[in-house]
Amino acid sequence: MVTASASGRIAPRLRLGIVGGGQGAFIGAVHLTGARLDDRYELVAGALSSDPHKAKASAPAFRIPDERAYTSYAEMADKEAARPDGIEAVIVATPNHTHYAICKTFLEAGIDVICDKPMTTTLADALDLVRLVRRTGLVFCLTHEYTAFAMVRQAREMVRRGDLGAIRIIQIEYPQEWLTTKLEDTGFKQATWRTDPAKSGPAGALADIGTHGIHTARYITGLELAEVCADLTAFVPGRKLDDNAHVLLRYQGGARGMLWASQCAPGTENDLKVRIFGEKGSLTWRLRWPNELFFSPLDGPHQLLSRGRGEMLPLARHASHLPAGHPEGLHDAFAVLYRDAADAIIERRYGIPAPETSKTFPDVESGARMVGFIEACVASHKGGGTWVKTEFDV
Amino acid sequence: MVTASASGRIAPRLRLGIVGGGQGAFIGAVHLTGARLDDRYELVAGALSSDPHKAKASAPAFRIPDERAYTSYAEMADKEAARPDGIEAVIVATPNHTHYAICKTFLEAGIDVICDKPMTTTLADALDLVRLVRRTGLVFCLTHEYTAFAMVRQAREMVRRGDLGAIRIIQIEYPQEWLTTKLEDTGFKQATWRTDPAKSGPAGALADIGTHGIHTARYITGLELAEVCADLTAFVPGRKLDDNAHVLLRYQGGARGMLWASQCAPGTENDLKVRIFGEKGSLTWRLRWPNELFFSPLDGPHQLLSRGRGEMLPLARHASHLPAGHPEGLHDAFAVLYRDAADAIIERRYGIPAPETSKTFPDVESGARMVGFIEACVASHKGGGTWVKTEFDV
Amino acid sequence: MVTASASGRIAPRLRLGIVGGGQGAFIGAVHLTGARLDDRYELVAGALSSDPHKAKASAPAFRIPDERAYTSYAEMADKEAARPDGIEAVIVATPNHTHYAICKTFLEAGIDVICDKPMTTTLADALDLVRLVRRTGLVFCLTHEYTAFAMVRQAREMVRRGDLGAIRIIQIEYPQEWLTTKLEDTGFKQATWRTDPAKSGPAGALADIGTHGIHTARYITGLELAEVCADLTAFVPGRKLDDNAHVLLRYQGGARGMLWASQCAPGTENDLKVRIFGEKGSLTWRLRWPNELFFSPLDGPHQLLSRGRGEMLPLARHASHLPAGHPEGLHDAFAVLYRDAADAIIERRYGIPAPETSKTFPDVESGARMVGFIEACVASHKGGGTWVKTEFDV
Amino acid sequence: MVTASASGRIAPRLRLGIVGGGQGAFIGAVHLTGARLDDRYELVAGALSSDPHKAKASAPAFRIPDERAYTSYAEMADKEAARPDGIEAVIVATPNHTHYAICKTFLEAGIDVICDKPMTTTLADALDLVRLVRRTGLVFCLTHEYTAFAMVRQAREMVRRGDLGAIRIIQIEYPQEWLTTKLEDTGFKQATWRTDPAKSGPAGALADIGTHGIHTARYITGLELAEVCADLTAFVPGRKLDDNAHVLLRYQGGARGMLWASQCAPGTENDLKVRIFGEKGSLTWRLRWPNELFFSPLDGPHQLLSRGRGEMLPLARHASHLPAGHPEGLHDAFAVLYRDAADAIIERRYGIPAPETSKTFPDVESGARMVGFIEACVASHKGGGTWVKTEFDV
Repeated sequence: MVTASASGRIAPRLRLGIVGGGQGAFIGAVHLTGARLDDRYELVAGALSSDPHKAKASAPAFRIPDERAYTSYAEMADKEAARPDGIEAVIVATPNHTHYAICKTFLEAGIDVICDKPMTTTLADALDLVRLVRRTGLVFCLTHEYTAFAMVRQAREMVRRGDLGAIRIIQIEYPQEWLTTKLEDTGFKQATWRTDPAKSGPAGALADIGTHGIHTARYITGLELAEVCADLTAFVPGRKLDDNAHVLLRYQGGARGMLWASQCAPGTENDLKVRIFGEKGSLTWRLRWPNELFFSPLDGPHQLLSRGRGEMLPLARHASHLPAGHPEGLHDAFAVLYRDAADAIIERRYGIPAPETSKTFPDVESGARMVGFIEACVASHKGGGTWVKTEFDV
Repeated sequence: MVTASASGRIAPRLRLGIVGGGQGAFIGAVHLTGARLDDRYELVAGALSSDPHKAKASAPAFRIPDERAYTSYAEMADKEAARPDGIEAVIVATPNHTHYAICKTFLEAGIDVICDKPMTTTLADALDLVRLVRRTGLVFCLTHEYTAFAMVRQAREMVRRGDLGAIRIIQIEYPQEWLTTKLEDTGFKQATWRTDPAKSGPAGALADIGTHGIHTARYITGLELAEVCADLTAFVPGRKLDDNAHVLLRYQGGARGMLWASQCAPGTENDLKVRIFGEKGSLTWRLRWPNELFFSPLDGPHQLLSRGRGEMLPLARHASHLPAGHPEGLHDAFAVLYRDAADAIIERRYGIPAPETSKTFPDVESGARMVGFIEACVASHKGGGTWVKTEFDV
Repeated sequence: MVTASASGRIAPRLRLGIVGGGQGAFIGAVHLTGARLDDRYELVAGALSSDPHKAKASAPAFRIPDERAYTSYAEMADKEAARPDGIEAVIVATPNHTHYAICKTFLEAGIDVICDKPMTTTLADALDLVRLVRRTGLVFCLTHEYTAFAMVRQAREMVRRGDLGAIRIIQIEYPQEWLTTKLEDTGFKQATWRTDPAKSGPAGALADIGTHGIHTARYITGLELAEVCADLTAFVPGRKLDDNAHVLLRYQGGARGMLWASQCAPGTENDLKVRIFGEKGSLTWRLRWPNELFFSPLDGPHQLLSRGRGEMLPLARHASHLPAGHPEGLHDAFAVLYRDAADAIIERRYGIPAPETSKTFPDVESGARMVGFIEACVASHKGGGTWVKTEFDV
Repeated sequence: MVTASASGRIAPRLRLGIVGGGQGAFIGAVHLTGARLDDRYELVAGALSSDPHKAKASAPAFRIPDERAYTSYAEMADKEAARPDGIEAVIVATPNHTHYAICKTFLEAGIDVICDKPMTTTLADALDLVRLVRRTGLVFCLTHEYTAFAMVRQAREMVRRGDLGAIRIIQIEYPQEWLTTKLEDTGFKQATWRTDPAKSGPAGALADIGTHGIHTARYITGLELAEVCADLTAFVPGRKLDDNAHVLLRYQGGARGMLWASQCAPGTENDLKVRIFGEKGSLTWRLRWPNELFFSPLDGPHQLLSRGRGEMLPLARHASHLPAGHPEGLHDAFAVLYRDAADAIIERRYGIPAPETSKTFPDVESGARMVGFIEACVASHKGGGTWVKTEFDV
């Protein structure tokens, strides 16, 4: 709303559908809240669950009329594409192994896609989506939502204008604690599919959250990985996928880094932290206090940059809703991502130009990079911890 | 959405109007985002500005149809009350001196009211609203939004179950920095009316933010003030209202406290902090890191309570959208307040019972208490810093 | 040692005596550690306890020979003054009510004095000491040790060079938790005398720690108090002196402030914090993280100044032993104070000039100011919380 | 002093010598301050520099008489061993490449040794010292001082009593910033020898500070490394030794970890942090705030353990000088280590039993383990980043 009036542009709400997000889901509700927050979308259709009964039963809570509460995503794509008032965009908020087929179906139906991460479970599928998006010209937004926090965007601009000098060291960590015990044996749905290779893909914590960390660092620095050396562990007895990933990183151009991703680290809650060190200074951003960015120039005092206070660079201003000292959270970041995607979709569909500052949302190539990273780490690990190249053409 | 499905209850969206919030406004957008976040309202009408041109020009950005974009709140109350699909609730997000008349008008038109704080500029007006709300039985929600943060609600429940023992000391501070220079001379609307006694009422920082602090402490502890001794200062030359308030507090029952509210404290951004000390322990909550609550029992280690991690008491669970480590912010708190108000309105209008945990939102009596507090402080200050009783019948 | 070689000056160790500090004492050991740390003193005599048996029994642990282990301070002053190798300086680390007589005795014996705070229990006694010190020209150092932390000294220099502009607001707090229960009834010596008006003087927490806070702010800002309004409370039933003090402060020149001192605030440990707000910026120093100073200029990002990193002003460099990131603590601050006092004593006795940066240690006038502050607060409180002037000639 | 009286034991001060520590040195002064703080030593002799002129010129500042100010450590060992009042212990505070020969010389002269780290520059030398110490029965203390912070010792005891359950993950980081530019080219002595393979040994940051981190984690957990995979980098052009080390760690028994040590990480000052994660909880200790230990049990709230507050386990009590809220720093940790070493030396020389809680100081075997770790990392790195076993018999 703020932005709409700020930009002076008033567009219709986009007609939105969702796949996933029904009863027992977690991230679907976050997507929808993000979509609602800046008022660019109206949810009108859904295939809310792969369980037909749940799909139907979940619809009223979303105010989705019964005739647009589908029991299969394929039917939804078909019927919505055929309606004059059919959905213009779809959210894909389902377990990883289904992303590829769902995205492909909606893209082929001419519907813009906002997809949860990781994009696919194989690099081949990911590259296929890249080709499809390029061919169709549709909007594809991957919800690496941490890139949408204002201070992450501030970091990106600061790196780009040279505040750190050449980047040397990238320290990434994303520990969680929720899978410290064997939660998947209790029937908790979020744990069950994430620890199942058939649904989650070839990696666990590495894919589920490690890629968030890697992606955030890539967003900030613009650097691509060259080689990785991974030590993946399943600490919880009987678990099939890694619940802890230790990875050494070598970037193109010479920067070095580390990634620690874990889902069995008691006390860490959900503690993404990215630190970037250059020749002239460093930046630290931590999800726990997302409205802050710590900047240490080598030749001056440490600076605590606060969202909304002092110099906010254009990308950061664009991603900030509230004045300094009024905390923003995850919903606000999702809102920024959804607003950015909306602006791109509105540009494509209605010809209203999207602002330049809306154009950094994670795209299909980013998604492929992350799947490539997962595959390289898994290969490194299977090789006993060797260095594996991650460079490839997207 | 989450809550709707959690509770199994699906109600229609309430038809909502707003007074204020047009171009140049700040808090109106926050109200509307809060209203939208949990999807209990649909904005359908507005008197968006006291300037008729702005009132009309602002409407499209809010998707308000022209015929319901009113140029006067009185006309809006009249016409909406007469429509079969008229608004069920109204947001009052205007400068302080207008609250009383607007609230009165809508209450008399049978429309439930969600009003920004402070409620009125005189205690007489405040008590009149108390009587009116009691007589009409309408819902009245005052947006002291800090009471809607999950960890503030956790604090309230912890105090109530005796985790701190008898309360002894209450330290409240709410410094800001934005009025350190004479911003009102630059034409910045937010500063202009807030520093103008004709629009803001008899106090400046004390009323604008000091009451937020006092109210948050009252919400947590349930204690009422007995006496105050205030030292109010206008540090910025030429300013007519206090930009700094130092107040000693004596509570009924013997607790003592301090309030510091300032709008000329460089570096503080917007830093509400409330600390409660009892015989057995203490609690600290700070807006800057709202997902945390620091609890120190006298006989055990300091505890950092994190929203969503470990024991969350019912009020806190009710006010929490996201799992631990996924930060929530101001919009989420506004959303909780709007959801609570919606549940009360839905109960009144549709007979669907509101959950018990939705019933602590700040009401008209709270509003009167805060206006009474302002008047007592102003009297103390005018008396040269004497102790003035704040007890009165509401 | 560092400083000795840094300054190129090598002086003999000063012969040092101590009154107090025997078995069951707390602060005496801290004084002696501080004296030892920079190697400017050799402890050679003591009247370690007012209990003659303890006085003798404590001596071997201090390596004090039996003939210089006195059972009365008066005897110690007499005999040491008469010895050719008698003590040159004495530490007074006894309960408050004895400071005056002991200091007077040693000053009259020509021995330089390092005295714990508060200096005396009455302003009359304090002013008498002022006269005596002026008359004798002896060195008198009052151990308000917080003024000796490097970052407090940095704050002082920053205020003096105008980094904050004119000072407007001074927020001081010094809460502790150790007297939350009636510890004095358990026989714990530190609690017994501090809560006994006959030994502690007319105030409890206010005098014991409140003066530390007031003094630290005075050291940093150079401002003198004009008026106070105090609300003193003894929360613990049966306690005779305040265990909580709330004081409004008006400074000469127009600055306003607050002091909160408490010894019954669970969870606070020993949490001195001083915040200074001026027209152009603010400074925050907190004992808990003493190597940091938070500086917020109004027109730039928040700065975290770290001891040893970046621009350290001369007083701060002088007070810093270790490089950045190597934490210093209370012993280091005591060491700086003892080194400063030593340099003044060496200058007086040996004619070796003390460095300019050693000359800010708290003196006898500072001590009198603090006693005057206590008396004004007690008068305000007895008057029911009136404003009382604190200005007086020292 | 405190401890001496606490234990009721009064021993003579040990006669102490030092090698190194003269003009331009850094760590020597810290050693001597540590030695002085608890008053167990008297410095009486020194070979203060390898430069004979400096060795002599530095002596007066240390109050070392000229005849005991030696120009060679070998002469010092000879002459002191021959004196009836010769030194009982020696501090070795010289560049790494000299440690072996100096330690060997003093051990063979029957003088107890307190040596800076890393112990030697080759594993062969380290193992030779192990044998020599075992043969002579002398005390050998390696100053990995971080093990002497009270909260590190608290962590050790908590792990040992099972508060974390089986250890799974060990995250170690020790970044510094002081070598971000080519400081060694400016003639700054500390930089010059540390970046010179001839003086520092085969590794730079890894050896200088990485071993501190590895050792601290080993002290806390008791776990030995099994394998390492290292990526060492010299970011600063022309530098011969690593200024950044990234190491993957596999521990005996299955725990995994990471080490990041860097001396070119702007903004980090000197930021050792060790995090230990087990099946049931985690512990975090950070040098920046050394009086705190963060403990997160999986099944309860996060706990902030403060030195001196609440349950302090015996090793932690032993290592704590001051009450809660009175910060301790690096000097206090050195003091604990020196006190522990003194107690062992006093036991050996005077038969006064050392307290059980004094017996965890880093010994010659610890030193060999760390040198072995360095060699394994260097081998891994030279192999292109392969996994190299670190297990060996000490």
